[in-house]
Amino acid sequence: MTRQLVLGLEAVMADGTIISSMKKIIKDNSAYDVKQLFIGSEGTLGIVTKAILKLEEAPSSRNAAYVGFNDYEKVVSFLKHMDSNLAGKLSGFELIWRNSYEQMTSVSHAVRPPLPYNYNYYVLIEALGSHPQNDHAEFQTLLENAIEQERILDAVMAQSPSDVEWFFRIREDVNNLVDFMKHDQHFDISLPIPLIGDYIADRYQSLDQIDGVEQIYAFGHVADGNIHFMIGKTNLNLDLKKKIDHCIYDGLKKIGGSVSAEHGIGTHKKDYLNLCRTPEEIALMKSIKLTMDPKGILNPGKIF
Amino acid sequence: MTRQLVLGLEAVMADGTIISSMKKIIKDNSAYDVKQLFIGSEGTLGIVTKAILKLEEAPSSRNAAYVGFNDYEKVVSFLKHMDSNLAGKLSGFELIWRNSYEQMTSVSHAVRPPLPYNYNYYVLIEALGSHPQNDHAEFQTLLENAIEQERILDAVMAQSPSDVEWFFRIREDVNNLVDFMKHDQHFDISLPIPLIGDYIADRYQSLDQIDGVEQIYAFGHVADGNIHFMIGKTNLNLDLKKKIDHCIYDGLKKIGGSVSAEHGIGTHKKDYLNLCRTPEEIALMKSIKLTMDPKGILNPGKIF
Repeated sequence: MTRQLVLGLEAVMADGTIISSMKKIIKDNSAYDVKQLFIGSEGTLGIVTKAILKLEEAPSSRNAAYVGFNDYEKVVSFLKHMDSNLAGKLSGFELIWRNSYEQMTSVSHAVRPPLPYNYNYYVLIEALGSHPQNDHAEFQTLLENAIEQERILDAVMAQSPSDVEWFFRIREDVNNLVDFMKHDQHFDISLPIPLIGDYIADRYQSLDQIDGVEQIYAFGHVADGNIHFMIGKTNLNLDLKKKIDHCIYDGLKKIGGSVSAEHGIGTHKKDYLNLCRTPEEIALMKSIKLTMDPKGILNPGKIF
Repeated sequence: MTRQLVLGLEAVMADGTIISSMKKIIKDNSAYDVKQLFIGSEGTLGIVTKAILKLEEAPSSRNAAYVGFNDYEKVVSFLKHMDSNLAGKLSGFELIWRNSYEQMTSVSHAVRPPLPYNYNYYVLIEALGSHPQNDHAEFQTLLENAIEQERILDAVMAQSPSDVEWFFRIREDVNNLVDFMKHDQHFDISLPIPLIGDYIADRYQSLDQIDGVEQIYAFGHVADGNIHFMIGKTNLNLDLKKKIDHCIYDGLKKIGGSVSAEHGIGTHKKDYLNLCRTPEEIALMKSIKLTMDPKGILNPGKIF
């Protein structure tokens, strides 16, 4: 999380006051941690003008693989298994639903599929370490054992830095999904990890029944519980937009999810904030907004 | 940091409103992260009644060693070296000043010294991992190489779980320091890691010149920039207390430190909050306090 890397911050408040918390120290419990107020507040409480970020030593080894699954439960248990066995080195666990994987790899020969189209779920797993030779061997052994123990159905491991680049280009170049859409609508929901499989499967089914929806692609950072949806649609009709929004968001309240894991509320998600925040939380937010920006001049119209 | 492990929180506000942010999701950017307000606010903004904490897979290997240094610069470069080589497994790096180490190990035979009294600094280093055999061998090789490369002067590695326990008892049983003090005064300051060596050396010198100070012990979590001082003194005279406070705190402002890394402000450090927070920060904190607790009924008299 970016929040955890922010050591110091400078922000300008609505009345021009400069709040300077530009410290380079890691632990500070001297009264309220005011910088937390500004992080993620979308410019509505102050304008961040400087930041001090924590850096980490660069890793010297990077390994990656694509792994195939048919059951979501197996995805979660493999995540736990690898997290436990890689002891701090697991750095990526990107889940891609079958139809998204097919589209991501079918468009051009530059991104041919590392695994065949036999599975319901594909995971791009990455580990960063500091011992290139040992780490490669360890990663490979873990994958081999996982196949033997029937934790996973298949795996293909990157054998070179260019393989790693190829593997990541598949996941990162989302233009391959969007380019074929007439119009597109994006989502970055957050939900408890064990519930992701069923929730997304249900969304696929319901979205498919909405007139005007042409493409549905899901993928995400499953270790963080953060799933992205990219929906292709025939028109920009507001009713259609809202139908799609409700289809994806409405179930989140019951399962304790969030309408935004990363991108924030802005104007698009204002109507849905009450699905993931209680009235008391929203009232508290508004009272803080009123205290810090009584005239409402900072990024007006956003969030609330 | 505890803050980073808190996923969800329930707090009761001054007017009885219950703020329930009891989510189990990891990423949530739906408007302000109000739970951050309650964390570390010492009960002055609300009373925390429930919390959901993130857990991690238990490690299956634990290695530890005591390492000796004469120069503080070498402590810092060894920290970076091990952090880089242990790739996420470094879990403890406790610096103990020579006289503290002597006192911690001299009191009883149950805590005999793992290393002789030849060095200016002692570091208790710990690594947690998931491959008991490999991890032990790797840790040992890293220490052997560090001696060969003259990164460290000496090292002794725990060879069994009971050794690990012995090593940690030395650091954790601070009664060995306090028991021999007539009266004691404690500190948990935070400062930039590269400056710790000089800052603490200067404090030792200045404290030594204060009439009434009998013992001075420093040790701390150097990887977090958090140093503890335990001062023994002859009497509870307020002037003496303030002299000691000023000696330890006054230099922190200039170097961007904090009067409290962990324990908070409470009543003891109220007079020194302005050394690590700007007037603008304190004014903002007070306006938030006034908004959330207008009658000042929550933990009155604390922090401000």
